[in-house]
Amino acid sequence: MQTGGPGFVFLYMTSRVTIVGPGLLGGSLALALKARTGAHVTVWARRAESVAQVEARGCADAATSDLTEAVRKADTVVLCTPVGTMPALCQQMNTTLPSGALVVDVGSVKAPVVNDLTPLFTAPTQFVGCHPMAGSEQTGLAAARVDLFEGAVCIVTPQISTPPTAVTNAEAFWQSVGCTTRRLDPQVHDEVVAWISHFPHLLAAALVQTVAEQLPAAFDFCGPGFRDTTRVAGGPPDMWTEILAENRAAVRTAIDGLIEKLRGLSTLLADAPSAERDSLMNQLLSQAKAQRDRLRLPKTPSDV
Amino acid sequence: MQTGGPGFVFLYMTSRVTIVGPGLLGGSLALALKARTGAHVTVWARRAESVAQVEARGCADAATSDLTEAVRKADTVVLCTPVGTMPALCQQMNTTLPSGALVVDVGSVKAPVVNDLTPLFTAPTQFVGCHPMAGSEQTGLAAARVDLFEGAVCIVTPQISTPPTAVTNAEAFWQSVGCTTRRLDPQVHDEVVAWISHFPHLLAAALVQTVAEQLPAAFDFCGPGFRDTTRVAGGPPDMWTEILAENRAAVRTAIDGLIEKLRGLSTLLADAPSAERDSLMNQLLSQAKAQRDRLRLPKTPSDV
Repeated sequence: MQTGGPGFVFLYMTSRVTIVGPGLLGGSLALALKARTGAHVTVWARRAESVAQVEARGCADAATSDLTEAVRKADTVVLCTPVGTMPALCQQMNTTLPSGALVVDVGSVKAPVVNDLTPLFTAPTQFVGCHPMAGSEQTGLAAARVDLFEGAVCIVTPQISTPPTAVTNAEAFWQSVGCTTRRLDPQVHDEVVAWISHFPHLLAAALVQTVAEQLPAAFDFCGPGFRDTTRVAGGPPDMWTEILAENRAAVRTAIDGLIEKLRGLSTLLADAPSAERDSLMNQLLSQAKAQRDRLRLPKTPSDV
Repeated sequence: MQTGGPGFVFLYMTSRVTIVGPGLLGGSLALALKARTGAHVTVWARRAESVAQVEARGCADAATSDLTEAVRKADTVVLCTPVGTMPALCQQMNTTLPSGALVVDVGSVKAPVVNDLTPLFTAPTQFVGCHPMAGSEQTGLAAARVDLFEGAVCIVTPQISTPPTAVTNAEAFWQSVGCTTRRLDPQVHDEVVAWISHFPHLLAAALVQTVAEQLPAAFDFCGPGFRDTTRVAGGPPDMWTEILAENRAAVRTAIDGLIEKLRGLSTLLADAPSAERDSLMNQLLSQAKAQRDRLRLPKTPSDV
């Protein structure tokens, strides 16, 4: 699935990348760039304490809390901060960012980010929205892993007006750290991830809370099924609150769709005669199993 | 957590165990008994082909498709077949089962099983309902693992009238293959597992099917979050159809409870003003995370 040829690899063998925000994704990206490419990596962190952690981890060539300094020589900037902080950071870095740089992000919601950030840069500097489907319920630089992006899908979400070169450069960048890349319209991206990531996260949290309210004693008997079904509910609340708010329309569509399905199942278990009930239930379970068995799923223990 | 002393271990070092049904659980139990105890293990299978598989795997001292022969010298019988087949099998084995034998099962639903099977045996022969919380979305002898029960919780569900010795013997048996044991009333057991196992299974299947119906293209972008959230949906449909039917009242309570929770979340994302919405959403996610972080969860990759 690698579409970037040797030319792209060479580009990132010699590039200067600035990572804005040294969390799980930013830290893992720094580790992967140092391990897999010859890129010069600068990490920006807001707090001096985080700068010191980056230096202690040894995952970057330079670390600083001065954003204009951090991007002064960058040809690629990767925004790894919460989505809500990105516009202000982009405006600030614009004063020193070299013309022609590529700016990408790792946000889980794309339509609002692409709409907000694209107009902040002037050609040939270009923003391209990206969503590497990697992460974990863990957070922070301490959880960073050199292989976090290996085999992960990175969805690249250009607008129709985005220059093709910027899109292929963004794709080559993610491929250089081990990702497979796909393209989606930003709005379609948001609908897709609502179904396979954002809503499942909210659903896991809702399930845990409903058990907590209705039969908390059941928690004493959890096995691996409940563990895996609810794993994503261990994710960072602040980040997920922002994601769910930004993508609320698509998430509501998913909530309401599942409510309808569950209503039908509740009725089925209550009313239908036994043979018909079991036949319909078996059909649902068989179709779901067949569907899931067909999925191409990642093998790594990381999380979307 | 081991409550069985050396006396119990000795009991199962010298016992004769008959396993009825060589699936994932029965096969794993045979492997564990041979590896961890000195028990003589006989496996009964309905089909000659399955008997041959047991012999090929080498996990039993004897294998046969003759049930009366299989239990003729047993002091412990473990029913590892679908719940619906158990009454007929018990009636059949009663003709040769030695008086005083202990009969246990591994069914995921306990109240109907305990009510149906207990009266089939005459004291001092005794049935004790058991639910080892181990398994997998995989099935069959080929998936059997010697360590499937290690560290798993086995819920033992005596009735008030069950003799204490039979209960402690059942507990010692499961401890001998690595389980921790807990006691629950059969009805309470069914309510507990509805919340943490049966309903989560149905929920995973419902989520997969709702995505399949509403945005199947999303399946192309699944990451580890969706993989884990829906893993149990890969389980055997026939077994789960039976479980959901047997435990339908408790499962419906869980479905209806989650529907209420999801309705509230849909309304929250639709109507409430932004600051209040984010605050309430953050509260839900934070409480769910705190609750889940507190759970004592198994580390093995097996499934309930």
